[in-house]
Amino acid sequence: MNNAPIGIFDSGLGGLTILKALQKTLPAERLIYFGDTANVPYGSKSRETVTRFSRDIAQFLEQKGVKLIIVACNTASALALTRLRKTCRVPVLGVIEPGAQKAVRSSRGGRIAVLGTEATVKSGAYRQQILKLAPHAKVTQVPCPLFVPLVEEGWSKNPVTRLIAAQYLKPLAKTQADTVILGCTHYPVLKPVIANVLGKQVQLVDSAQTLAQEVKNYLISHDEQAQGRGSLTIYASDAPERFKHLAKHILGTRLKTVRLKKLNA
Amino acid sequence: MNNAPIGIFDSGLGGLTILKALQKTLPAERLIYFGDTANVPYGSKSRETVTRFSRDIAQFLEQKGVKLIIVACNTASALALTRLRKTCRVPVLGVIEPGAQKAVRSSRGGRIAVLGTEATVKSGAYRQQILKLAPHAKVTQVPCPLFVPLVEEGWSKNPVTRLIAAQYLKPLAKTQADTVILGCTHYPVLKPVIANVLGKQVQLVDSAQTLAQEVKNYLISHDEQAQGRGSLTIYASDAPERFKHLAKHILGTRLKTVRLKKLNA
Repeated sequence: MNNAPIGIFDSGLGGLTILKALQKTLPAERLIYFGDTANVPYGSKSRETVTRFSRDIAQFLEQKGVKLIIVACNTASALALTRLRKTCRVPVLGVIEPGAQKAVRSSRGGRIAVLGTEATVKSGAYRQQILKLAPHAKVTQVPCPLFVPLVEEGWSKNPVTRLIAAQYLKPLAKTQADTVILGCTHYPVLKPVIANVLGKQVQLVDSAQTLAQEVKNYLISHDEQAQGRGSLTIYASDAPERFKHLAKHILGTRLKTVRLKKLNA
Repeated sequence: MNNAPIGIFDSGLGGLTILKALQKTLPAERLIYFGDTANVPYGSKSRETVTRFSRDIAQFLEQKGVKLIIVACNTASALALTRLRKTCRVPVLGVIEPGAQKAVRSSRGGRIAVLGTEATVKSGAYRQQILKLAPHAKVTQVPCPLFVPLVEEGWSKNPVTRLIAAQYLKPLAKTQADTVILGCTHYPVLKPVIANVLGKQVQLVDSAQTLAQEVKNYLISHDEQAQGRGSLTIYASDAPERFKHLAKHILGTRLKTVRLKKLNA
């Protein structure tokens, strides 16, 4: 048993899709979520800069006494995970490995596409991870930079979003992908639109559920599960009221409090 | 005469529209441009955070010995200008005052609309400035958060951009604005699309030319003009190669070098 909290972080709001899955799978855990709204977005920034942001947040979470850190951001998982694992005293889990695992398990024909930010795609982290599990898989990568601002704008149901999705996803008709990874934690919000563009024959996978299960397995095997009632504390590095307001789009419920925690101020 | 350089900064690429006007109007000046690509965008962030970013950049420019600082970013001008003027040893000019001036001069009916980022609109800086010059003006403010990512994505000619512009600009038909301020340095790139949506009867104004003229007047009246051949040095706080690549969309020409200068690393 270990009642220490679990730390989760993202560049902003997107990681709340991961938080939701964790709350459902691990209702007894104390969760601390950090959204780096002062530096959002990460997807167009360099490895070095994203690693610096991630390291500062991990340090803050370690000071809060977490037993585990979850990088609930695909860009940070792709660019900073190796480094974080070296510098943190607690285990660090990312979203790339569980996403790749789930895609490989789901895919019938081994034709897997990855949708992600510019930086995630450029890093090739998903491709690498998929090929480790399924060396003969055919992997296509598609950067979709406007998806994050569309979600942050609350436009997931706006007809314009479907048109943009249709443009981004055009190359997938050619590669006949049978499985598509939503390789950014914002993208599950656009699932209905993406499914509508790609059609029923294509499977959409994201990391949330697989990651939550992985965390559960880890806690059980290390005898580190919490007991009692779970809790949630949310920090944002800027504009906590704005974060609270926009979180509704993703969580479907209102957050009570979002605390301001500036990094390097 | 004063051959010290002029410092110009923006959250990222947008300020290059201002740089272009300065180069044309003041060909003898040495210009230092700083794009804060590690922290871009500013438009969704708080006054405090945008002020902190701006102060760090101004400090760097002062260390470079500039004789004048130009805040070529509407959000930073709206949120941080007063503070910068207090902390900097050299004069600081922003883009809000020249934009408001030009709009008031151009408007026949006094019905002026301001397009800007969420933060610029929320600050009310343009409204305040316009009403100072024309107390009876009718000012409408419209936040257009997707315009910056569309420009950064190089989609200024994509049909989707017109659809998004049509949605944002719908309220302006009601208010019958005769003059519209492009209140973000990225927006001049979308001028053809915005003009197409609003029609010929509406005048579009931006700050670039008025600001460049204001800088020239200042230099003449203070006898601080440079002599000789002008020059341009560009710094970015992250991913300078990406900056160089994307700058083409705005400048129309290729930049030779963009130097990396991290703030607070």
